[in-house]
Amino acid sequence: MNRRDFLAATATAPLLGSLPLFANNNSSTAVDSLLVHTTTPMNAEPHLANLVKSDITPVSQFYIRSHAPNPKIDPAAFRLKVEGLVERELSISLSELANDYSSVRVTATLTCAGNRRYEHSKVSPVKGVPWREGAIGNAVWSGVPLAAILKKAGVKQEAKHVWFEGLDEIEKGGGIIPFGASIPIPKAMDSSEKMPGAMVVTQMNNKPLTPDHGFPVRTVVPGYIGARSVKWLGKIVVSDKPSTNHYVATAYKIVERADAMEWAEKAPIYRFVLNSVICTPVADQRVEPGNLTVRGYALPHGESGRTVKSVEVSADGGRSWSRAKLGSTSAYCWCLWEANVSVSPGTNGLLVRATDSAGKTQPQHVDWNKKGYLFNAWHHVPVK
Amino acid sequence: MNRRDFLAATATAPLLGSLPLFANNNSSTAVDSLLVHTTTPMNAEPHLANLVKSDITPVSQFYIRSHAPNPKIDPAAFRLKVEGLVERELSISLSELANDYSSVRVTATLTCAGNRRYEHSKVSPVKGVPWREGAIGNAVWSGVPLAAILKKAGVKQEAKHVWFEGLDEIEKGGGIIPFGASIPIPKAMDSSEKMPGAMVVTQMNNKPLTPDHGFPVRTVVPGYIGARSVKWLGKIVVSDKPSTNHYVATAYKIVERADAMEWAEKAPIYRFVLNSVICTPVADQRVEPGNLTVRGYALPHGESGRTVKSVEVSADGGRSWSRAKLGSTSAYCWCLWEANVSVSPGTNGLLVRATDSAGKTQPQHVDWNKKGYLFNAWHHVPVK
Repeated sequence: MNRRDFLAATATAPLLGSLPLFANNNSSTAVDSLLVHTTTPMNAEPHLANLVKSDITPVSQFYIRSHAPNPKIDPAAFRLKVEGLVERELSISLSELANDYSSVRVTATLTCAGNRRYEHSKVSPVKGVPWREGAIGNAVWSGVPLAAILKKAGVKQEAKHVWFEGLDEIEKGGGIIPFGASIPIPKAMDSSEKMPGAMVVTQMNNKPLTPDHGFPVRTVVPGYIGARSVKWLGKIVVSDKPSTNHYVATAYKIVERADAMEWAEKAPIYRFVLNSVICTPVADQRVEPGNLTVRGYALPHGESGRTVKSVEVSADGGRSWSRAKLGSTSAYCWCLWEANVSVSPGTNGLLVRATDSAGKTQPQHVDWNKKGYLFNAWHHVPVK
Repeated sequence: MNRRDFLAATATAPLLGSLPLFANNNSSTAVDSLLVHTTTPMNAEPHLANLVKSDITPVSQFYIRSHAPNPKIDPAAFRLKVEGLVERELSISLSELANDYSSVRVTATLTCAGNRRYEHSKVSPVKGVPWREGAIGNAVWSGVPLAAILKKAGVKQEAKHVWFEGLDEIEKGGGIIPFGASIPIPKAMDSSEKMPGAMVVTQMNNKPLTPDHGFPVRTVVPGYIGARSVKWLGKIVVSDKPSTNHYVATAYKIVERADAMEWAEKAPIYRFVLNSVICTPVADQRVEPGNLTVRGYALPHGESGRTVKSVEVSADGGRSWSRAKLGSTSAYCWCLWEANVSVSPGTNGLLVRATDSAGKTQPQHVDWNKKGYLFNAWHHVPVK
């Protein structure tokens, strides 16, 4: 922690849940009390007891996933390019984005495909940021439906996928590449006002994006893993195939060997999966036998209309389950929950599992995969 | 059954396991004793008690999966075209295929992605051929490694997938399309002599292909679902993306809704999955309490080097398991097995599950999917 971060941490300590004092568009967001995995690039997640305090995650408690240092972007000179299989190429300034398009505001959860990765590593080591359970957050996003921009550009008949390209510079294989993603055309063209398939976002929780979260412009793709919500968005390309960028063609796939054959056979991960996590008590916390209040989050499968239907907690290894009270539930959003369980002396801990409105329940176990993605087995928290 | 089939059935009845008397290259294969789902196009599978009689499946007992009537092909005029991202387009006659390329012979199992589909329909109805457990067979295939043909054509740098196009004519959406498939370039270019990644095949069990199985030329792609082994092969196209044919872009994917969004998000199914089936006794057969011999087949996951490692049978609902004796095991091939179990009065039937050399065991249950593909839950056979 450098001196500035230390000051920020001190200053914001009594203000947990409000916006950080020192966040602005010209410096790094204060990473007050986050668990920082790497600083260059910044990869950090909140502590679980903080994460579960509010349904809308404060920017200061929102996980940060970056593949390169934050790019320096001059808002006045910034232009969002739209290219590829379109009738008209576009080059959109920030003021045009604000004035020429109708804005919408939606609440949606972002989560890293690698959330809970460290649990994979208990089976066999997995490379990548060793995310615990905090690489998730729920925010209010304001911006323009991607469909509105694509309609202005005019999408050609043969279009199948829309690529996003960041302005970051990632060192990869001896060269420099931007972070990239793509989404299928039906998702990109979904112009539902309440929940567009994808958005070009300028505000997070009603404030301009911070540099750590993609200032000045990012995509947010509700229901999809965070990697498809590209920060520092510089270019949109309409194509007849998925992006050939490393982070679509190779990374972010469920693979066992991670060789050329598997990369060609497997689809990119798009949707996040049904999940639930116990946030308090935290692992190895001392708890008294008797009644215990347990809190956490649950996430529905990232499909239209699917919501968290029930969350169950067990304090006896899965023999009996207590149903949790749920906070607000909606599609593409997490749901906070609270359960009361009776803890016996000598318990080996707590388990949680969620079921969503499609009747699917989280799996008890999941297969290991080489990159450690989409871990969603029943969450176990050992207590003393 | 028409008169000709009836004659064939009568004639071949005592010759089970040998080649059918009436099969030749100018008429339909005799479908002696097959369970015929549809005749135009022909879709049929053997009875399980016959299927399990020999490690190499006789052509007469090999399942038939067609999407259109068998095309009439003049062997003298036939040319296999090779096009797309190649240095030199090719047009290969049957004599050139026989004389200009080294031939290889491999044993590999083909199985329909829809094998065991009727079990999906027990949960919720699934369209498509209601395959029982017989849409699988193990044969000796002779032909030319696809890699040898592609090397002669010269594959361009940007190639990523190889498309196959049949000479059949399928009515689809008011038009006529050929059956199509594609496989990734690393699979297509795998030139291993013992087991090439893919083959252009002219012989099945050391005889020319029959019309039902693709005469004069088909592909065989070891480890992949049968749909990638295209019959009546007419054209090979090298491309930078998977085939846009209906049977790659839309069909043969694991989907829940089968809409444009899901088709765009999901990869085509390539590999077949770990499976096992009880072939004798058959369902609802009367068995005496006491010792019982159970026979069936098991299939490893269709990955290089994976073989069936163990097969277990239970006669008490999964409380205890008897290990089966295995026949020959090899990658990309099924394995026949035999187990002895003790049956109690009032048993609700037999269960089987297989484990392959990667340590993976078949799942007890599988999620329903809308097209009914890759059903590989523990196989249950009720007996009386």
